[in-house]
Amino acid sequence: MLPFMHMLRRAGLVKRILATRRQYSSRFGYEHSRCLVFSNFGQPEKVLKLHSYSIPPPYDDIINVRFIASPINPADINQIEGVYPEKPEFTLGLGTGEKSAVPGNEGLVEIVSCGSRVNPSIRPGQWAIMSGPNFGTWRTYAQAKESNLIIIPDREGISPLQAATVSVNPSTAYCMLKYFAGLGSGDYFIQNAANSGVGRSAIQIGRLWGFKSINIVRDRPDIDRLKEELRLLGGTEVITETEAKDRRYMAKITEGRSIKLALNCVGGESATNLARILGHNGHLITYGAMSKSPFSVPASALIFKNIHCHGFWISAWSKRNEAAKSQMIRDILSWVRDGEFTDIPYEITKWSGDTELETLMEPVKRGISEYSGRKGIFLMDED
Amino acid sequence: MLPFMHMLRRAGLVKRILATRRQYSSRFGYEHSRCLVFSNFGQPEKVLKLHSYSIPPPYDDIINVRFIASPINPADINQIEGVYPEKPEFTLGLGTGEKSAVPGNEGLVEIVSCGSRVNPSIRPGQWAIMSGPNFGTWRTYAQAKESNLIIIPDREGISPLQAATVSVNPSTAYCMLKYFAGLGSGDYFIQNAANSGVGRSAIQIGRLWGFKSINIVRDRPDIDRLKEELRLLGGTEVITETEAKDRRYMAKITEGRSIKLALNCVGGESATNLARILGHNGHLITYGAMSKSPFSVPASALIFKNIHCHGFWISAWSKRNEAAKSQMIRDILSWVRDGEFTDIPYEITKWSGDTELETLMEPVKRGISEYSGRKGIFLMDED
Repeated sequence: MLPFMHMLRRAGLVKRILATRRQYSSRFGYEHSRCLVFSNFGQPEKVLKLHSYSIPPPYDDIINVRFIASPINPADINQIEGVYPEKPEFTLGLGTGEKSAVPGNEGLVEIVSCGSRVNPSIRPGQWAIMSGPNFGTWRTYAQAKESNLIIIPDREGISPLQAATVSVNPSTAYCMLKYFAGLGSGDYFIQNAANSGVGRSAIQIGRLWGFKSINIVRDRPDIDRLKEELRLLGGTEVITETEAKDRRYMAKITEGRSIKLALNCVGGESATNLARILGHNGHLITYGAMSKSPFSVPASALIFKNIHCHGFWISAWSKRNEAAKSQMIRDILSWVRDGEFTDIPYEITKWSGDTELETLMEPVKRGISEYSGRKGIFLMDED
Repeated sequence: MLPFMHMLRRAGLVKRILATRRQYSSRFGYEHSRCLVFSNFGQPEKVLKLHSYSIPPPYDDIINVRFIASPINPADINQIEGVYPEKPEFTLGLGTGEKSAVPGNEGLVEIVSCGSRVNPSIRPGQWAIMSGPNFGTWRTYAQAKESNLIIIPDREGISPLQAATVSVNPSTAYCMLKYFAGLGSGDYFIQNAANSGVGRSAIQIGRLWGFKSINIVRDRPDIDRLKEELRLLGGTEVITETEAKDRRYMAKITEGRSIKLALNCVGGESATNLARILGHNGHLITYGAMSKSPFSVPASALIFKNIHCHGFWISAWSKRNEAAKSQMIRDILSWVRDGEFTDIPYEITKWSGDTELETLMEPVKRGISEYSGRKGIFLMDED
């Protein structure tokens, strides 16, 4: 692990030098931002356009930021389609002919320059992530206010991809493990979609907090390799959906111990099976519906086993819990820095000054059509 | 109301006179008990038998009791079928050839005589209900201990049928309204199966606590009469399942106000519709599954509306909350006494010394085959 940490630290150093230079080059000039925009809800390939506009130097409490990396989350795509309850603001401020919005909710920025009334603790070269949803992160530059940003005080040892992806997947896993079932050291939780971004985060956070995890993945040809990989992350057991339906097998795995918490990103039969597996007084938390099927809850599990079903939505939680969110981000990034929290596999799309719409659309289309276990992310060139 | 109360009081007086006589007649003699018994789980008409046995005079902490009334609840029938999680104890103590159990979980008894070490506050002639499930209440006499009984300190103004049915249906409604959603005066709740024993109780307790109720019943020919009846009990709105699926109609009824609590005894589509109707942060409590269909929960209602699904089982709650249960019984019986809590419709089966098995089986079979909105109950003759 050590040589890798060294490399990261050196990379951080190089970045800071670059950032310091940038501070002077852009303070007096305009930034040229390129962004994806949409004016109507619909299929991303039909409604997304590439747009360029100029950003003036910041004044008052305005902060000019450069995007370093912006993930492509399923929620972003649902938002473009118009099927997500959180709608972006459509504005003429981008210089488009009709009112438009920039998609993307998660992202890492670098502070480029600050208006005269910006809190002096915010300085060019610092990294920050979005404090909440709906900023519009699929662009290269933007103007923000302090309230839009959570500054990352110490970015040493943290890669841009890690920082950019901290506020949705690892945060969702962190909250679900922390706030629902009062898990203690040695307690079991179970989850489906264990190979997803949230799933891999839950495995690792569970390991760090001393929880035992039973991780369900879909049956696939290379299942042994995947099982080994997730066990190396800290998963106590990694099993297939088929194995999870075998009651004897499950009893053997848990040695008859009760499972207090189940995390559900799939729905349908997989979720109903989690309700069956859960022990008395257990909690089933739904945070996704990858199968696009609702799940049925047996009344007997509710009445006689006293299980509870809840949902979790990181956007809503973040709005209600600002202080807890900042603390959570610090916790997760400190694990990253210590090498205890490993990257999820990324599918990187480079975004430089001349990247075409077609190239940018590729990961968006992949995000709709398949779930590969790799997280799509735009990585912006500093040009 | 007054003449009725007078009649009850006079009836109570007569009972007490009879009870005082009985105290002497049975203290030195044996009671002859007749009971329904079963030795194997199965269809009630196949496994239930009528059995007679003698009960000796009480000694030490034993209390001899006479059953006054014993309801026939759906759970009792499920217990005989073997599909209920709570199993009765099969014993040779009844003098049957093979190990047997007496069905029935709810009932009202009169104290007949007490052993020498019974708490002196327990006296012949007093009424008591079962403190928990599994006593076996479908019989005419039994031996109990103090821990099996909740003494009803003041039975004036309470009919035997009301006292006998207080610990399942009204108690279930009381707990669900009190412990889940933090309802306050003027808040809405919604329920299906509003014409059931629990449903009618919830309407009345809701009225007493200042809650507004939306009560869903199945479409039926005499719907207007039933709507009027449930409104007279205190239901704010009484609507059919069809009307409950009409979003515009629902929005008009609630004047756009959010519904915080839904009580579900039906399952299937009816329950899924409750999940749709519930407002943000609402709670859906399942206490029955009359449709025998599990219900599906839309992931969006869990994630984006943050609704919570729970179950409620009065047996389990009673075991964990003895003091709260005694207080609840006192609350409900005081409403009954004040004429503020009305009987549910009963289907009475008289049980005297020579009643045949066939007669006793009729309400049990009815309990399986139909849901009439009337509660089956055995009313024992004092013979």
